[in-house]
Amino acid sequence: MPLLYITRKEHFNAAHQLWNPKISDEENFTLFGKCANPNFHGHNFDLFVCVKGQPDPDTGLVMDLKKLKIIIREQVIDDLDHQNMNIDVPWLKDKMPSIENISVAIWNRIAPHLPVGVALHKITLWETQNNFVEYFGDQAE
Amino acid sequence: MPLLYITRKEHFNAAHQLWNPKISDEENFTLFGKCANPNFHGHNFDLFVCVKGQPDPDTGLVMDLKKLKIIIREQVIDDLDHQNMNIDVPWLKDKMPSIENISVAIWNRIAPHLPVGVALHKITLWETQNNFVEYFGDQAE
Amino acid sequence: MPLLYITRKEHFNAAHQLWNPKISDEENFTLFGKCANPNFHGHNFDLFVCVKGQPDPDTGLVMDLKKLKIIIREQVIDDLDHQNMNIDVPWLKDKMPSIENISVAIWNRIAPHLPVGVALHKITLWETQNNFVEYFGDQAE
Amino acid sequence: MPLLYITRKEHFNAAHQLWNPKISDEENFTLFGKCANPNFHGHNFDLFVCVKGQPDPDTGLVMDLKKLKIIIREQVIDDLDHQNMNIDVPWLKDKMPSIENISVAIWNRIAPHLPVGVALHKITLWETQNNFVEYFGDQAE
Amino acid sequence: MPLLYITRKEHFNAAHQLWNPKISDEENFTLFGKCANPNFHGHNFDLFVCVKGQPDPDTGLVMDLKKLKIIIREQVIDDLDHQNMNIDVPWLKDKMPSIENISVAIWNRIAPHLPVGVALHKITLWETQNNFVEYFGDQAE
Amino acid sequence: MPLLYITRKEHFNAAHQLWNPKISDEENFTLFGKCANPNFHGHNFDLFVCVKGQPDPDTGLVMDLKKLKIIIREQVIDDLDHQNMNIDVPWLKDKMPSIENISVAIWNRIAPHLPVGVALHKITLWETQNNFVEYFGDQAE
Repeated sequence: MPLLYITRKEHFNAAHQLWNPKISDEENFTLFGKCANPNFHGHNFDLFVCVKGQPDPDTGLVMDLKKLKIIIREQVIDDLDHQNMNIDVPWLKDKMPSIENISVAIWNRIAPHLPVGVALHKITLWETQNNFVEYFGDQAE
Repeated sequence: MPLLYITRKEHFNAAHQLWNPKISDEENFTLFGKCANPNFHGHNFDLFVCVKGQPDPDTGLVMDLKKLKIIIREQVIDDLDHQNMNIDVPWLKDKMPSIENISVAIWNRIAPHLPVGVALHKITLWETQNNFVEYFGDQAE
Repeated sequence: MPLLYITRKEHFNAAHQLWNPKISDEENFTLFGKCANPNFHGHNFDLFVCVKGQPDPDTGLVMDLKKLKIIIREQVIDDLDHQNMNIDVPWLKDKMPSIENISVAIWNRIAPHLPVGVALHKITLWETQNNFVEYFGDQAE
Repeated sequence: MPLLYITRKEHFNAAHQLWNPKISDEENFTLFGKCANPNFHGHNFDLFVCVKGQPDPDTGLVMDLKKLKIIIREQVIDDLDHQNMNIDVPWLKDKMPSIENISVAIWNRIAPHLPVGVALHKITLWETQNNFVEYFGDQAE
Repeated sequence: MPLLYITRKEHFNAAHQLWNPKISDEENFTLFGKCANPNFHGHNFDLFVCVKGQPDPDTGLVMDLKKLKIIIREQVIDDLDHQNMNIDVPWLKDKMPSIENISVAIWNRIAPHLPVGVALHKITLWETQNNFVEYFGDQAE
Repeated sequence: MPLLYITRKEHFNAAHQLWNPKISDEENFTLFGKCANPNFHGHNFDLFVCVKGQPDPDTGLVMDLKKLKIIIREQVIDDLDHQNMNIDVPWLKDKMPSIENISVAIWNRIAPHLPVGVALHKITLWETQNNFVEYFGDQAE
C-alpha cells in the first residue's frame, strides 16, 4: 500500500514575550530585541499538522480529517487562541514561548491522540509571513 | 493629467485586548468574547496606505514610495510594532483598540505628512486573514 | 462620527454547471466552454461581506463580527457548502449559477438580517484565484 | 554535480463525492460527512509536481519547465479540469476520489514521461487552503 | 437589472529601469534609488482588469471571461511578458515605465476592445507584494 | 535535545536572461523560449533559508533570526536586489543565472557564516508563483 502524508492547517492568535528572568534587562533586550518588550506583543500563528499512513482501502483516507481537526482544536487551539502564552497555558508553564519550544510542546500534545496506523510526521508553525519552524520529533545527536 | 491611486503595504505585530472598564466583566465577555481575555492576545496586522494624485511628468510617479514608507514607519509602525496597543502607544491612549479606532488614528497620524499634491485616500487594516477594516476619512451623516 | 467599512471572509466548496436548457448543446459549449461539462465541476469559493457604519462609542466596533459570521453562515454558507448549486439550493432555483447571479442572491440573503445602523456595502465572491465579482446592490441605469 | 529539486505548480477545478457503494447511506455520511452529499461538490485543486536531477552544464536547468508543464497538462490537467472525478476520468475509474488516491494516480500518470536523468520526487495536492496531501512514491512497510 | 463588477487576473514578468535622461546621474539615483540601476531589474507583475455591466439574462454573465482573457493577452500580456519595458514595447516608447504610467497605457490598450454594454472600470497593477497602483480612467481636476 | 528547522524568508527583485553564448540564437530560443529575450526580463524572487539545530536552553532559540536576516542580506540580498544577474553580481559571473545555479551559489554564500551548532539545511528559491527550486547541499551520485 502507498504511504501518504496528509496535512491539516489551523490557526490561533496569541500574545507572548521572550524574556529570561535569570539575566539582566539589558541582556534580554540584546538577545530578544523587540520581542522582549515588557507588555507583550502578539501574532497570528498558522499551525500545520502533518501525519503519515496508508489510505484505508474502503475510504481512500489516511485519516478522517474532521477527527484530526478535533484533536488539534481540543489539544492545542482551545488552549492557545486569544491567550497569553507566557501566563495562560499550563503546558507552556516555565518554558520560553519561542516557536521552537511551542512546536515541540504541540507535538507532545497531539502525538498520543492519533488513531492506530497513523503517525505524527511534522509540526510546522508560522509566526509571521517571514519565519516558521518545523519539528519532526527528532533529537539532535 | 490622469488621477492615480497608489498603495504601500507595511505590517506590524502587536498585542491588544478589547475591554470596557465602565461595564461588568460579564458584559465585557458577552460583547467581546475571546478578545476580552485579561492577559492580552495579539495579531500580525497588515496595513495598506492608499494615496491619490497625478504622476509627475518627469518621474512618472504620484509620490516617491520610499518617502511614503518612511512616513508610515515613523508615524505608525515604530510606535505599534511589538507593542501593547492598550498600554504602550500615546496616540491610542483612552481609545478602545478596535481595528476601527486604530484605523482612524492611523489616518490622523499620516494625513498631515503627505507632500503637496498628494491626498490620503484610504487606510486598510487587516487583523486576521478573515477580517479587515477600511477608512476613507469620511464622517457618517 | 467616522464612517468605517468592515469585511468578514468566509468560504465554501461547491459544485455547479453553466447550462441554458433553452438553447442547443453546441450553443451551450460555445457560450460556457468547459463550464458546461455535463457532470458538474466545482470550486473553493471565497466570500467577502463588507458592511458600513460608525463605531459604537462604548465598544469601538461597527458591528460584532461574531454576529456577522453567524448571519453569513446561517443565511449562505450552510446552504452552499459541499452542495451542488444547480440542484440543492432553494434560493438559487431557476437561476443560472454564475458568480454574478450568486452574488446578487447572497446580497438579498444577508441584507435583511443586519442590525440597525449597519448597512450592507459590498459582496465580493472569488471563484478561482484569477476571477471574482463585486456587487454593491446597485441597479444598472 | 549538485542535486536539485524543482517544482512546477498547476491547478484544476473539479467536482467529486466521497461515497462507498458497499456500505449504507448512514455509514457513508458518518465516514465522509458533507463530502458524501449526493449531487457532488467541488474544489480548486493546486497541484505541485517536484522532480529531482542535476542541472545541465550548458543550460543550468534540471529540466525544461515548459516540457514539464506540457507533461502535467497532457497527462493530468486536461483530464481533470472542469470534470467530475467520480464519473469522467478513465484513470480514476473504480477509485475513491480522495486526494490520497488522486495523488497516487497522478504520480503514476507523470512518472513514465520524465526525460532520462530526471526522477519524480513528490506530488503535492491541495484540496482547500486548509488541507493537502504529499506522496513520494513510497510504499508503507 | 443589477450592476456588477467582474475582475480577471493575469500576470507577466518583465524588466524595467526608472531613469530620466534629462537630469544628471546623481539626481536620478536620488529620485529613483535602486530602481535607477543601469542594467535593469525586474518584477512579477500581477494585473487585475475590472469591467462593469449587467448580467445577460440568458447566460448570467456580464461578459465571457474567456474573451476578456484573450483581449488582455493580445493587447497587453503578449507585448510585456518576458520583455524589457524601456526598450521592447512600442506603446510604452518615450514613457517612464513607472507602474502609474504603465497602468494608464494598459487602460488605453484594453478599453476600445470591450464588447457593447461592458465598460472598463479599473486597472490594478501590483509590482511587488508591497505596492500597487489603481487607475479608474479619471483625470485629476 | 530536540532538533528543529527554522526558516527565514527574504526577497529581491532582479533581472536576468537565459542565454548560452556557445550555441546559435535559434538554439537558445528553442532551449530557453521567452527567457532568452535579449533585453532581459525580471522577477520578484522569494528566498527561504532553512537552518537546523537545537534550541538554546536559555533562549529557546535555534538561532537569533535577526542575525540570520543580516547574514542573508549582507551575503545575498544586497548584491542581487534591483540588479541584473547576468552582469552585476561577481559571484554569479560566468554562471547561467537559472534558479538552480543561483540557489547553489546562495548556499555557498551563506553556509560559511552560520554560528557554531547551526547547519544550513535548505535553500528554496521561488521565481514565480508557479515554480521554485530546492537545494539541500547534496551532490548527485
